[in-house]
Amino acid sequence: MAFQIPRGTQDILPGEVERWQYIEEKARELCKSFQYKEIRTPVFEHTELFLRGVGETTDIVQKEMYTFEDRKGRSITLRPEGTASTVRSFVEKKMYAAPQQPVKLYYIGPMFRYERPQAGRFRQFVQFGVEALGSNDPAIDAEVISLAMNLYKVTGLKKLKLVINSLGDSESRKSHKEALVSHFQPRIEEFCSDCQNRLQQNPLRILDCKKDRDHELMGNAPAILDYLNEHSRAYFDKVLYYLDSLGIAYTVDPNLVRGLDYYNHTAFEIMSDADGFGAITTLAGGGRYNGLVEDIGGPETPGIGFALSIERFLSALDAEGVKLPIDEGIDFYVAALGEEAKDRSVSLVAELRNAGISAEKDYENKKMKAQLKAADRLSARFVGILGEEELAKGAIMVKNMDTGEQEEIGLDSISAYMLEKR
Amino acid sequence: MAFQIPRGTQDILPGEVERWQYIEEKARELCKSFQYKEIRTPVFEHTELFLRGVGETTDIVQKEMYTFEDRKGRSITLRPEGTASTVRSFVEKKMYAAPQQPVKLYYIGPMFRYERPQAGRFRQFVQFGVEALGSNDPAIDAEVISLAMNLYKVTGLKKLKLVINSLGDSESRKSHKEALVSHFQPRIEEFCSDCQNRLQQNPLRILDCKKDRDHELMGNAPAILDYLNEHSRAYFDKVLYYLDSLGIAYTVDPNLVRGLDYYNHTAFEIMSDADGFGAITTLAGGGRYNGLVEDIGGPETPGIGFALSIERFLSALDAEGVKLPIDEGIDFYVAALGEEAKDRSVSLVAELRNAGISAEKDYENKKMKAQLKAADRLSARFVGILGEEELAKGAIMVKNMDTGEQEEIGLDSISAYMLEKR
Repeated sequence: MAFQIPRGTQDILPGEVERWQYIEEKARELCKSFQYKEIRTPVFEHTELFLRGVGETTDIVQKEMYTFEDRKGRSITLRPEGTASTVRSFVEKKMYAAPQQPVKLYYIGPMFRYERPQAGRFRQFVQFGVEALGSNDPAIDAEVISLAMNLYKVTGLKKLKLVINSLGDSESRKSHKEALVSHFQPRIEEFCSDCQNRLQQNPLRILDCKKDRDHELMGNAPAILDYLNEHSRAYFDKVLYYLDSLGIAYTVDPNLVRGLDYYNHTAFEIMSDADGFGAITTLAGGGRYNGLVEDIGGPETPGIGFALSIERFLSALDAEGVKLPIDEGIDFYVAALGEEAKDRSVSLVAELRNAGISAEKDYENKKMKAQLKAADRLSARFVGILGEEELAKGAIMVKNMDTGEQEEIGLDSISAYMLEKR
Repeated sequence: MAFQIPRGTQDILPGEVERWQYIEEKARELCKSFQYKEIRTPVFEHTELFLRGVGETTDIVQKEMYTFEDRKGRSITLRPEGTASTVRSFVEKKMYAAPQQPVKLYYIGPMFRYERPQAGRFRQFVQFGVEALGSNDPAIDAEVISLAMNLYKVTGLKKLKLVINSLGDSESRKSHKEALVSHFQPRIEEFCSDCQNRLQQNPLRILDCKKDRDHELMGNAPAILDYLNEHSRAYFDKVLYYLDSLGIAYTVDPNLVRGLDYYNHTAFEIMSDADGFGAITTLAGGGRYNGLVEDIGGPETPGIGFALSIERFLSALDAEGVKLPIDEGIDFYVAALGEEAKDRSVSLVAELRNAGISAEKDYENKKMKAQLKAADRLSARFVGILGEEELAKGAIMVKNMDTGEQEEIGLDSISAYMLEKR
């Protein structure tokens, strides 16, 4: 009987996992420079959190959550995204009362959505995201956007497109909503049942519908940008001003609506422009969510963030043919001949490893030739040959595989030798 | 309405998360030296995997799993440990056919057990573990043990105790099992109901019972070491020989039985000897599981591994009063005066951050004095003051907070200056 991985999930194995490690390390470095600090919340939360924090009318909540009861009958849900949990923690741990504001957080971890598995889309996927809570300065909007853009750029991606929009404040949204209802109402029966439900609940999301995207009313629907009040317009202009000052190119798209209910003011997406990327080109998305902290039970607090999927990130690297600079070799391989030398090689590699040198040996009682083949397969930079003769002298013959040079080194100075050579 | 974190789970917040990052980074470095490579398996698996791979008679499977049905009615379980998933992937991805053997893997990630929450024990906890699959060389047993010991030692822990035992091969276990049954059978009704069930299923686990640990039959129960056949004895002796050669002290404890069903030959635990650690002093546990790959549907393959919890690791550091060397300061804080300078500071910090310098600014329109206070709170090593006067000159006044020295630096050379100074 063989066991299989659950449908829609994947194992990330050596050979591929190094690319994940590389991106995550870059993300952590960038967060350090930008002064975003990591938060780790549980993989599951009480279901109510996502109903409130993601929005009951979203596809995520209505169709895609992994919801179940624990042994006490409490409804819990594997987190479908990271913002609701982060904000829950911000409120529960009273971070709004910390002296240093805004509170700048990041997370990297698995998220879960029960979707139809397809190329590049998994039921468990990894998101990196940041949230800046507690500031209404348009500079923080630009900062969050630039952090996302920088992460893509430092890995070598070039074909990126930043699309931005403003959804305005609640007043602006209200007038826009009225205009949308007037626009769609007369012909709403031509739209899908989801859109018909959205008309009263959240007509903005009709613009986001994949089924009805080609309906003629979509093209000339009232654009939020025409309904922004003075404050919202000024805010948006300042965000764009800062993006200009940071040298970040963007396209304003008045039809950009994010799939989650809680956004206002700044909304943005970063897409890949690479050829042959496939249908889904959005790499990252985010925006401002000034009402969310209150919805989760906290004091009125502005917030902005983004999230990106590592899976999609890797697809973009593939589409552009970017090879990440990953070191695959090892520093040292010891090939031992004879029982005594094999025994001695155990403490030899241990000593090297303790000195921070990556070292490997044989564990299969292989012949010398097969050991050297293994050294080659592992791209060893140095190979040490330990036979009876060398052992008797307390030495090892070390070969530099790049230059072909050989030297006999005392066993008691091999770590020092390698620390210098490597 | 305020939302709460699920019972038995925790948020790991800035201020504490840096200790997790530190340990995980050390673990990754060590794995690189030792040539263990990361594997990432999904957070959930088909429930059957754990029934088979952890063992149906274990507490974990019988009482502690988060098991639920997905939308298609398949039974899935949040992984309670990492070995079963790793072995499932090893088999499914045919890693046993890779040219390089043994396959040496590590994982770091959340595990889930529905236990009664108590100090230092969580329903979601993080395990770091390694598995070496495909070698029967006692040197790999010693290597796996030394990797675990090294990780504790490099962080500064000193009060460690390594306890080791051999559970023998199946022949040895069979004779031992018969001896155990004969030993306990006559008075089994004096034991708890769990132990009564264990008598026929797996009498070895009676020795592991917390309820009956003080029963007089426990002290003089037949010890596995007295039932090892020649091969098992020789194997164990060689493991101990290698540990000696690596300078790793240990205590042989014939009563050490691991809680999982699948172990044979080497079994070990690492405990903290620190005062005031509390009742649970086991930090890490592991052992050899030569039958497990076959149980999961693969070819006959030996294996050995260990797992340790990061939570318990941190408790041990606390108990010994070890403070990890975590850098908490930032490189640069820019304090800006006036609208124009504030705007300019946005691109100024961006430039520094892009150069890898951690930099921060104000986002709350604070007065100069409050900005300097923030710089102090963030332990900024350098503070730049940007007022109208400096801006007019295209310069910034930079103060080294350690030495008190001040210098006026051109805005266009600030990154170069900081890269040199920092």
